[in-house]
Amino acid sequence: MTDLHALDAYLQAHLSPHRYAHCLGTAQCARELALRFGADADKAYLAGMAHDMSKWMKGKEYLRYAQEAGIQPDAYQLANPGLLHAQVSAHLLQTLFGEQDEDVLQAIRLHMGGAPNMRKLDACVCLADWIEPGRDFPDVPELRKLAERSLELALRQALATTIILLLQEGRVVQPNSLDTYNALTQMLNRKEALV
Amino acid sequence: MTDLHALDAYLQAHLSPHRYAHCLGTAQCARELALRFGADADKAYLAGMAHDMSKWMKGKEYLRYAQEAGIQPDAYQLANPGLLHAQVSAHLLQTLFGEQDEDVLQAIRLHMGGAPNMRKLDACVCLADWIEPGRDFPDVPELRKLAERSLELALRQALATTIILLLQEGRVVQPNSLDTYNALTQMLNRKEALV
Repeated sequence: MTDLHALDAYLQAHLSPHRYAHCLGTAQCARELALRFGADADKAYLAGMAHDMSKWMKGKEYLRYAQEAGIQPDAYQLANPGLLHAQVSAHLLQTLFGEQDEDVLQAIRLHMGGAPNMRKLDACVCLADWIEPGRDFPDVPELRKLAERSLELALRQALATTIILLLQEGRVVQPNSLDTYNALTQMLNRKEALV
Repeated sequence: MTDLHALDAYLQAHLSPHRYAHCLGTAQCARELALRFGADADKAYLAGMAHDMSKWMKGKEYLRYAQEAGIQPDAYQLANPGLLHAQVSAHLLQTLFGEQDEDVLQAIRLHMGGAPNMRKLDACVCLADWIEPGRDFPDVPELRKLAERSLELALRQALATTIILLLQEGRVVQPNSLDTYNALTQMLNRKEALV
C-alpha cells in the first residue's frame, strides 16, 4: 500500500505547483464522488493523487519509459506520446511505491477517457479530473451540477464536451473516449448504472 | 452493369418522392465531385443513385434481409437496424440489377460515415449524400464551399458536424464515423490526399 506522505513528497518534488494542486484537488474530489456513489473512497483518493504523477516527463521520455516498462504504445500514443501519461503514472506508482491494488492502478490507467467496461471507481477518478475545484472551463458548472445526482450522466457529458471541442478544432480524438461515451449512453438508455 | 433506367424505375416505385429526389441529387452531386477530384464519374453517379435504394424497408425487414443475405449486423445495427441500409442497398443492387463492380458496391456500403481506408470514389458519394442540392441544414453552405477545393477537408467537416450533433443530443455515435474523421485528420496533417 502506497505511503501517502511519500507520494505527496514525490508529487511536490516532480510537478509544478499548479499540477500538484490539481492532483490534490482530483484526489479530494474523487473521494467525495466515491462516497456519494458508493465506490471505495480511499482507493479513489490514492488514484486521484497519483493519476498525473508521470507528467514531469516529456514526449521522448514517455516513449523510452514505455519501451523499458513493456508498455506497447498504440498509433495515437506514438503520434502524441503525452497520451501515455496515464499508463506510465500507474506503472510508476507500482514500481516506485509498491502499489499492488489493481483497482487503484486501473483507475489511474483509465483516467483519460475511461473504457466501455470501466467500473464506478474508475469513473469517479475520471470525472474528478474534469471537475476538481481548480478546474475552470465554461462547462464545469454544469458538469458539477450533474455530478451531484448521476455519475454516468456527468461523465457522459464530460466526454461529449471534450470530444466536441477536439472535433471543432479539427484535432484527432482517441477512439476510447467515444467508446466510453457510447457505453454510458447505452447504459443510461437501459436505465442501468456503473457497478 | 446496372440498367440506369430500370434502377430509376425501381427507385420511383419504392421510395417517397422526397427520397427519390435525394437519390437523383446525390447521384448528380457525386458525379460532379468525382469530376472535380479525379474519381470515376459514372461509378459515382450509379453509387449515388443506389445508395439509399433499400430505404423502403423498416427495422425488422432490415434484420430479416440481413440474415437471409448473410450480412452480420454489429451491435449498433442490432440496436438500430436502419443503420443496415447501406449494406442492404449494395446487396440489392448486386442481386436485383446484377451489379458486379466492387468499386460501386463499396461506395454504397461506405456511404454512412466512410471508413479509414476509404477511397476517393467512396468519399465523393459519402460527401454528396450530405451536400446534394436538396439538403438544407445550417452547415451545408460551409460544407459546399469546402467541397469546392478539398474533398478531404469537406468530408472531415461533414463527419465532425454530424458527430457533434449526435453528442449534443446524447445519442450513440457509430465508431466508424470517428475512425474516418481521425484518418482524414491524420491525412490532412501529413498533407496527403485520398487515392
